[in-house]
Amino acid sequence: MNKKKKVLLAFSGGLDTSYCAIWLAKDQGYEVHTAAINTGGFDESEEQALAEKADNLGIKNHVMLNVEDEFYQKGIRYLIFGNVLKNHTYPLSVSAERVFQAVALAEYAKEIGADAIAHGSTGAGNDQVRFDLVFQVMAPDLEIITPIRDQKLSREEEVEYLKSHGIEQEWAKAKYSINKGLWGTSVGGAETLSSHKGLPEDAWPTEFVNPDPLVVELGFEQGEPVTINGERLTPVEVIKKLNELAAPYGIGRDIHVGDTIIGIKGRVGFEAAAPIIIIKAHQLLEKHTLGKWQLYWKDQLAEWYGMLMHEGQYLDPVMRNIETFLEDTQKTVSGNVFVKLEPKRFELEGIESENDLMGSKAGQYGEMNNAWSGEDVKGFTKILANSMLIQQKIQNHD
Amino acid sequence: MNKKKKVLLAFSGGLDTSYCAIWLAKDQGYEVHTAAINTGGFDESEEQALAEKADNLGIKNHVMLNVEDEFYQKGIRYLIFGNVLKNHTYPLSVSAERVFQAVALAEYAKEIGADAIAHGSTGAGNDQVRFDLVFQVMAPDLEIITPIRDQKLSREEEVEYLKSHGIEQEWAKAKYSINKGLWGTSVGGAETLSSHKGLPEDAWPTEFVNPDPLVVELGFEQGEPVTINGERLTPVEVIKKLNELAAPYGIGRDIHVGDTIIGIKGRVGFEAAAPIIIIKAHQLLEKHTLGKWQLYWKDQLAEWYGMLMHEGQYLDPVMRNIETFLEDTQKTVSGNVFVKLEPKRFELEGIESENDLMGSKAGQYGEMNNAWSGEDVKGFTKILANSMLIQQKIQNHD
Amino acid sequence: MNKKKKVLLAFSGGLDTSYCAIWLAKDQGYEVHTAAINTGGFDESEEQALAEKADNLGIKNHVMLNVEDEFYQKGIRYLIFGNVLKNHTYPLSVSAERVFQAVALAEYAKEIGADAIAHGSTGAGNDQVRFDLVFQVMAPDLEIITPIRDQKLSREEEVEYLKSHGIEQEWAKAKYSINKGLWGTSVGGAETLSSHKGLPEDAWPTEFVNPDPLVVELGFEQGEPVTINGERLTPVEVIKKLNELAAPYGIGRDIHVGDTIIGIKGRVGFEAAAPIIIIKAHQLLEKHTLGKWQLYWKDQLAEWYGMLMHEGQYLDPVMRNIETFLEDTQKTVSGNVFVKLEPKRFELEGIESENDLMGSKAGQYGEMNNAWSGEDVKGFTKILANSMLIQQKIQNHD
Amino acid sequence: MNKKKKVLLAFSGGLDTSYCAIWLAKDQGYEVHTAAINTGGFDESEEQALAEKADNLGIKNHVMLNVEDEFYQKGIRYLIFGNVLKNHTYPLSVSAERVFQAVALAEYAKEIGADAIAHGSTGAGNDQVRFDLVFQVMAPDLEIITPIRDQKLSREEEVEYLKSHGIEQEWAKAKYSINKGLWGTSVGGAETLSSHKGLPEDAWPTEFVNPDPLVVELGFEQGEPVTINGERLTPVEVIKKLNELAAPYGIGRDIHVGDTIIGIKGRVGFEAAAPIIIIKAHQLLEKHTLGKWQLYWKDQLAEWYGMLMHEGQYLDPVMRNIETFLEDTQKTVSGNVFVKLEPKRFELEGIESENDLMGSKAGQYGEMNNAWSGEDVKGFTKILANSMLIQQKIQNHD
Repeated sequence: MNKKKKVLLAFSGGLDTSYCAIWLAKDQGYEVHTAAINTGGFDESEEQALAEKADNLGIKNHVMLNVEDEFYQKGIRYLIFGNVLKNHTYPLSVSAERVFQAVALAEYAKEIGADAIAHGSTGAGNDQVRFDLVFQVMAPDLEIITPIRDQKLSREEEVEYLKSHGIEQEWAKAKYSINKGLWGTSVGGAETLSSHKGLPEDAWPTEFVNPDPLVVELGFEQGEPVTINGERLTPVEVIKKLNELAAPYGIGRDIHVGDTIIGIKGRVGFEAAAPIIIIKAHQLLEKHTLGKWQLYWKDQLAEWYGMLMHEGQYLDPVMRNIETFLEDTQKTVSGNVFVKLEPKRFELEGIESENDLMGSKAGQYGEMNNAWSGEDVKGFTKILANSMLIQQKIQNHD
Repeated sequence: MNKKKKVLLAFSGGLDTSYCAIWLAKDQGYEVHTAAINTGGFDESEEQALAEKADNLGIKNHVMLNVEDEFYQKGIRYLIFGNVLKNHTYPLSVSAERVFQAVALAEYAKEIGADAIAHGSTGAGNDQVRFDLVFQVMAPDLEIITPIRDQKLSREEEVEYLKSHGIEQEWAKAKYSINKGLWGTSVGGAETLSSHKGLPEDAWPTEFVNPDPLVVELGFEQGEPVTINGERLTPVEVIKKLNELAAPYGIGRDIHVGDTIIGIKGRVGFEAAAPIIIIKAHQLLEKHTLGKWQLYWKDQLAEWYGMLMHEGQYLDPVMRNIETFLEDTQKTVSGNVFVKLEPKRFELEGIESENDLMGSKAGQYGEMNNAWSGEDVKGFTKILANSMLIQQKIQNHD
Repeated sequence: MNKKKKVLLAFSGGLDTSYCAIWLAKDQGYEVHTAAINTGGFDESEEQALAEKADNLGIKNHVMLNVEDEFYQKGIRYLIFGNVLKNHTYPLSVSAERVFQAVALAEYAKEIGADAIAHGSTGAGNDQVRFDLVFQVMAPDLEIITPIRDQKLSREEEVEYLKSHGIEQEWAKAKYSINKGLWGTSVGGAETLSSHKGLPEDAWPTEFVNPDPLVVELGFEQGEPVTINGERLTPVEVIKKLNELAAPYGIGRDIHVGDTIIGIKGRVGFEAAAPIIIIKAHQLLEKHTLGKWQLYWKDQLAEWYGMLMHEGQYLDPVMRNIETFLEDTQKTVSGNVFVKLEPKRFELEGIESENDLMGSKAGQYGEMNNAWSGEDVKGFTKILANSMLIQQKIQNHD
Repeated sequence: MNKKKKVLLAFSGGLDTSYCAIWLAKDQGYEVHTAAINTGGFDESEEQALAEKADNLGIKNHVMLNVEDEFYQKGIRYLIFGNVLKNHTYPLSVSAERVFQAVALAEYAKEIGADAIAHGSTGAGNDQVRFDLVFQVMAPDLEIITPIRDQKLSREEEVEYLKSHGIEQEWAKAKYSINKGLWGTSVGGAETLSSHKGLPEDAWPTEFVNPDPLVVELGFEQGEPVTINGERLTPVEVIKKLNELAAPYGIGRDIHVGDTIIGIKGRVGFEAAAPIIIIKAHQLLEKHTLGKWQLYWKDQLAEWYGMLMHEGQYLDPVMRNIETFLEDTQKTVSGNVFVKLEPKRFELEGIESENDLMGSKAGQYGEMNNAWSGEDVKGFTKILANSMLIQQKIQNHD
């Protein structure tokens, strides 16, 4: 008697992955296992609902893999250290969590002895590359199956197919494709498919309720957010609590335009109140506590880190080296940042830190200097002018 | 008979440079010429008032050098091309104009056959370095005289000295030191001298009047701002008009924290509605019209350009090379950007451009792809995974 | 009557491309046109011999496309400006010429109205990617046919196939695969397939004849090599003449180890006497005639230029921007470099240039200074120490 | 009774520092302590001779501070990890050791409670800046005294002054100024003062004896050189032993041309057989054992590390961060490199390493591929071409 081959399917409960589940089981004869991965996007009721959907489809076994902490420890943490905003805007809300979802899937697939991994990505986006890349590196012996990308069915065909296998239900077609996680929520569709228009108010996941201005004190230790208004929390809790506070202000909404991994341009909205505030607050604290060249090189490496993360190349060994660098820079990045939340915007009022390099008694910008003389600065500029002066004299530059 | 030596003094009409003028004439025996340089900070009445002040001090000859256009053509233009925001925040409002003021002073000093150039900078800021550097390179044979930096007098001593030479007037001591120019206005003092607090509402130069939201259409040609709501203007006019429109919204106010040229940290407020909007709009247009590596390398070179400009090293020959690069990237950066002005913030709604790379029929992000197949992407990720897979296999990275 | 479809085949006359020619004609029914592209690797007799081979195979039409000058003007020139040595070693001898061959093929294919382009690359190297990339960008409507890569036949099978179509001849199997061009000759096979051994003496294309040492004076104008021992030549002639002089010394032989475009590591020998000498001489001249930051940024951009060229992404728009930058830096790079040729090595004795920044009367390294005082340097270091001192004081770094 | 103030003088035994010693004691009334710092340049007899010279001058206390190990552990080690060759040529032979000498002097000065530190640097070189910078950061309260820089005396005046204080001896004036240390020996003077000529044979410190070719096997562990021909040694011993072997071949001689810290260009010869061989061997090993982006970013950071080290800014906090990065990359850099020593040159034959990424069974460059298909590469290039193709189509680039 032949043993059925096992496939692990990344499962969201929507039409596409429901189709995949049935197609893999009925047409391909797989024993279908499903997993959803919680990187901050599921609450308990959603988890429950998803399990029921899997049950209705007759899935052999369904699990929810919770990697929220791993996502923070191995991903978000470095995105904060690096103040990573892709194309000066996007905190990698979805990009980064996809990678950690892929890693969790690959590990779980190997754990259950799967022969294949399936995911429901289309052929037009970044996610397919992120999943494929991680699977091919971590689980090179497992087949990767992508029914949606390969078959290019219409919604109607999928619905029909499911019906023909006894699965009848309403498959809601949302106007916007929403993806929610710990590090932000993406909103794609309609306006974001062309270049001209922003998203309308009702497209945003969190309702804007126009609350009163509020000053929040955000505390960092060695680069990690650890207190909010003096209350000590885990960094994951800080992110969640700050998001609850700030999202109703409509803070952290923006549109990311950038190059996809597959070479086309893409445009997607996102709402990421906590990520944007934390990164901007952290960056301000760094301006006070790090040296000029530390800031410069952090930016260089962090941009690269963000790019490789965004493009799914998280497993490239240079990523580990960059993480080491970033972490090493954070030793002095401790202190409080004062953030004023206002409708649709926030203001960084200032910081306090015992490592604040502005605290110097030596000299105060624009005020009288004690630690050096006018003569010293004259000598400084005299020497600094040397190379330019020589070049002017000899090469007669205009 | 001995001919008097000639000094050119950079003159603002304030206490410090008035002291310098008298001290140079009376104590040092110079024939004192003064110049103010208009990089967008003076209107006609202010120019008039300054000429009268010079007259009252008995200056031999006073001029206003208007270099607004040169400042745009040789400076601001490249700051726009490079989307230069120092430390991710500051459009170099004062930094850049100081350089062009210094250049104009050096040229004028040589033109009038001056033996020395004097400026009223203190010994604690960046301006002294910017002035000294440019003078030492462009006019190495002229003595540089800096009475304020050298003598470190108190305001009272300066007032007393002037009184003793018959100059009696009220010398207003403003709470904030304000510096206005085409590319923004800086606001230093009080809160900015320490790290904790932002500037209060009344510290900002332009009154916030809470106007109604307004969508502005900003047109660029090859990277330069040339229309506003369809009206064709010179770039300098676009900057001025946009500033008039946007400044009353309280847009473009922020605080810059950074490393000074002399190694201490500095903090300064600025209001720069037009610069911030233009840079952000230009940057969005570039995201749609430039390739991934063009964006990457523009950022690299522009950061350096901004740093050397900020630090007064505008005459370094690499700056000319970077300008050439930046200009060459702008060929396709034409189109309109839709900017919604709101109280204390603005939103980039989107763009339209015939060079918009999102306009591709080939593929649409997140939607169905026509120009390539799922197999193509599989091949792509397969090959892209190669190096990581080999490294995992051979070096057993975890 | 159906018109035959036309294919343009890149033709080398060897077993692989002879197989392709017959297979395309007989099995696929194409009208087969062939082209070889001269980027400096063919002399007249070789060109003649190749034409005969094409004739023997019954090729419809065969041409030799001479793009030596274009290769220099649009490629080598910038590799010299950038001192491009991939992985600190390899002048991109083959990499760069492949790109220009691909461009010439694409243009010619469009000119003759071909329906397809074919090349004989295998599936394991870089060349397949270089050809495919250029074709897909320049001639996206033409089919790309790669029989060798697709069919993976053994030499015996190819010989047999040709025999069955009446083509009988000796197909020499060289121990080393040699590729010759204007910018160097590559040598792959045997030792280079593993990591341990260098190439033996008889593997190198040019015989080492142990000549007497000889000093050559190489003249550059704005970065381009234009004279040799005072004789004015075109840059292409300088390269050829220098190579004739230097190759018999065994100069310019080395092994390149690097990452291929497809993610595996590759190792290949090369002999490139003129390229190595020209690059090193040019680089020395630049050290004397360019400023510190010009040298720094040239290196940054040139490394990227070399990488994208090596990886076939010559048509990326950032390449044009980098070329503009590199060219702009060369204005002062004129002068003579004195190169001593010795067996298996060369020495750069020195340079002379009217733009030599060491020619300064201002100061001479290690000798007495006239243009500044000890006090100036004291001031300089005092100010330069500021940031580090403040950091030590406040953050207690060890 | 007034206690004498204490000065620590960096002492070489030559005319300049002997003058300093007497001048500090007799004219300035200091209690003069002297120290020489051994960074690999002194053997026992030289140490003895120096102590006698100090004794003859009546120095209060003279010590030899041996920091060879510290120099390796905290400096050379990272220069190897980073393959640091300043301006593609110079292993920082003198630059780096000056920094460690300065650090040792500052620490010792504080240990003995000195009031001042003196050194004999002139005002035209880099060393003055390196010493001053380190002293100002590590010992900001100590006065820095530089009699040679300040007084600009001629040799005759110094000799005369010493004679007048009873010090009569022959003060040899060498044609070349030689500085010897563990990481190489610099040779300045005569030819290096202008741009045209190389150094003559007899200027080089080690005699060239034209030995027979010899293959040396150099073993690395995590980036550090630890064996030579199989014999396990400390890295410092490897450097010394390799230098003994290779220097008589005339290997590692070259001339460095570069920008000094004070803005002028400088030119200096150096002989550094072991450093050059170790760096080049290490670099080859890395090409086999590190990924593409690891190599890229190592180069970026190492160039900066070398520049700041060269310019005396070793105490900048970014240096510690870069060291952490470089060290983290070295985990896989273990194996043997085969180096063939020949007269005036060496050849890297190859390497063996269990981390060799060329050892892949997956694919072999230029040979048949097993791990991927021609279709995979087609898909790869198809997707890779996307961005360029879209740009061509929309923006009509030529």
